[in-house]
Amino acid sequence: MPSVRTDPIRGHRTIVAEERVRRPGGFVVPEEALDPSPCPFCPGNEGKTPPEVLAFRPPGGRANDARWSVRVISNQHPALRTETQLARHAVGHYDELSPVGAHEVIIESPAHVRSLDELGKEPFAAVAHAWQERIVDLQKDFRLLYAAIFRNTGRAAGAQLTHAHSQLIALPFVPREIELEIAAFRAHEALHERCLLCDLLRQEQSGAERVVYENDAFTVFAPYASKVPFELWIVPRRCDARFERISAGERSQLGDAMFTALKKLGRALGNAPLRFDIRTSPLGERAVKSYHWRAELAPVLVPSGSFEAGTGACINPVSPESAAELLRDTLVAG
Amino acid sequence: MPSVRTDPIRGHRTIVAEERVRRPGGFVVPEEALDPSPCPFCPGNEGKTPPEVLAFRPPGGRANDARWSVRVISNQHPALRTETQLARHAVGHYDELSPVGAHEVIIESPAHVRSLDELGKEPFAAVAHAWQERIVDLQKDFRLLYAAIFRNTGRAAGAQLTHAHSQLIALPFVPREIELEIAAFRAHEALHERCLLCDLLRQEQSGAERVVYENDAFTVFAPYASKVPFELWIVPRRCDARFERISAGERSQLGDAMFTALKKLGRALGNAPLRFDIRTSPLGERAVKSYHWRAELAPVLVPSGSFEAGTGACINPVSPESAAELLRDTLVAG
Repeated sequence: MPSVRTDPIRGHRTIVAEERVRRPGGFVVPEEALDPSPCPFCPGNEGKTPPEVLAFRPPGGRANDARWSVRVISNQHPALRTETQLARHAVGHYDELSPVGAHEVIIESPAHVRSLDELGKEPFAAVAHAWQERIVDLQKDFRLLYAAIFRNTGRAAGAQLTHAHSQLIALPFVPREIELEIAAFRAHEALHERCLLCDLLRQEQSGAERVVYENDAFTVFAPYASKVPFELWIVPRRCDARFERISAGERSQLGDAMFTALKKLGRALGNAPLRFDIRTSPLGERAVKSYHWRAELAPVLVPSGSFEAGTGACINPVSPESAAELLRDTLVAG
Repeated sequence: MPSVRTDPIRGHRTIVAEERVRRPGGFVVPEEALDPSPCPFCPGNEGKTPPEVLAFRPPGGRANDARWSVRVISNQHPALRTETQLARHAVGHYDELSPVGAHEVIIESPAHVRSLDELGKEPFAAVAHAWQERIVDLQKDFRLLYAAIFRNTGRAAGAQLTHAHSQLIALPFVPREIELEIAAFRAHEALHERCLLCDLLRQEQSGAERVVYENDAFTVFAPYASKVPFELWIVPRRCDARFERISAGERSQLGDAMFTALKKLGRALGNAPLRFDIRTSPLGERAVKSYHWRAELAPVLVPSGSFEAGTGACINPVSPESAAELLRDTLVAG
């Protein structure tokens, strides 16, 4: 039954209109071969990238040598730089801010693979650790108000290099989508004295029709107003506004949840282009309590068009209930 | 000089970071051939589409015959239907609305062309007339609160058929992006007693560095915080919240502005996939005065990734000033 659903956190509406002509798993995913030749992100090519800002190495390793498990470098063409002076100007009716910030690349593995799930669960926990350490370091700069962590897999999702990597952009402003989400959390808390996402999580767990996977610390589910087919949220059950307060045990549970979600999506959809990002509290003086961090995974199966761009509303041809059912039934070796 | 710019109407921020490695016009646009065979939108195939809801025909023509200049049909797989009863339910913490609405396809020309600008200026005015008539008709249904008019050209922009067409989706809600824009117009008016877009238009006209084209009724410019390279706004200089109050003279000026903008984009960028939409006042009981309608054109030259989706912020590698300069210098025969 088609319906129009409101997303309580993001505020958009999704028209869920299942196409009877197409089965939930019946998307044509373009084959995108991994370029097999060693790339600048491969070990031994450290000199071809900007110098590292963080790397995990066995004891005795030296900066920029080839023995690392995760390596974080500055983006070769950074959109923002910490060296810039923070300045705000009016340009007539417009507002301009100087491009203060940081733009880093997290090389997720020395292995030249397209996605970390080819290597097992452990590498994910190490990557989450690198994200955490970079946020902890960058937030010492009081000008940086938000750290966006994200990953584009596949060309249609915006990736330029195929070797598994994520990115961190530290911004001198709180982005609009996060401001809007925080306003929703605050409105809910003002009325109910409870966390909005904790409430949604409890409802998802009791109904279970959109839950795909659970472990000791995280619940993976298809959100009620999914913007796109097979969108998944990975939500920590311990309520915390800030991703960077994740514990070592939670990092390993997050690794397990990310591995399982990616493996299930891969089995069900093939090598679909994929977007991933973490939504977390702003930093420094803009940090908030009324928030609950999460990770979002969104396969790119249908191009987003003018309707979505112009209205913020979405048309989703696969209900989150169908998507969750298919993914629950897609078994993954542990 | 890179900068972070705030969009006064849409509220997002754009990091303008021009890539020195790439000239403004140096995008690789995938060649996408028009499928030359007659399609369901071609004259003579009227029986293969749902029946028309509007068509412009010479006197004496009959419904669904093959002599038409613009033809509006229901979408074969509509996301929303007027036959549905309007009902609102709570689903625990979630909100569900029944899928009341309309989903129509405007076949913009009997000629099997990819884009109307291949045929001259006049067809655009006729298409704008069809949009207007459909809104005037649909708003008689008090349940419909917004009419989204949009066009996807090229597969990367979401088009499925190549024969020139636009779409109209009438919604039982005011979409989030329009709500947010109206809030910005209202805040500006409360403080200044002036229209926000009139103020921006005056600034654009006096500076002129982002203006691409002007005729008697419309100004075409690259917005200050363009989300993507070569984004253009087509703005009527007569302030009106509602597109559907456009006059016959304005329709023909809009046709001239759309033709010129599309021709210039085509000359500068080749057959780039393109998004187009109209932003206008909500309908019926949700209609507002504090708004100023406009059309937006956005080429799809770089894939939008997780950063944009997750934050609402954009990284634009071509400044609107460079884009406008290139497009101003791109001459178009009248």
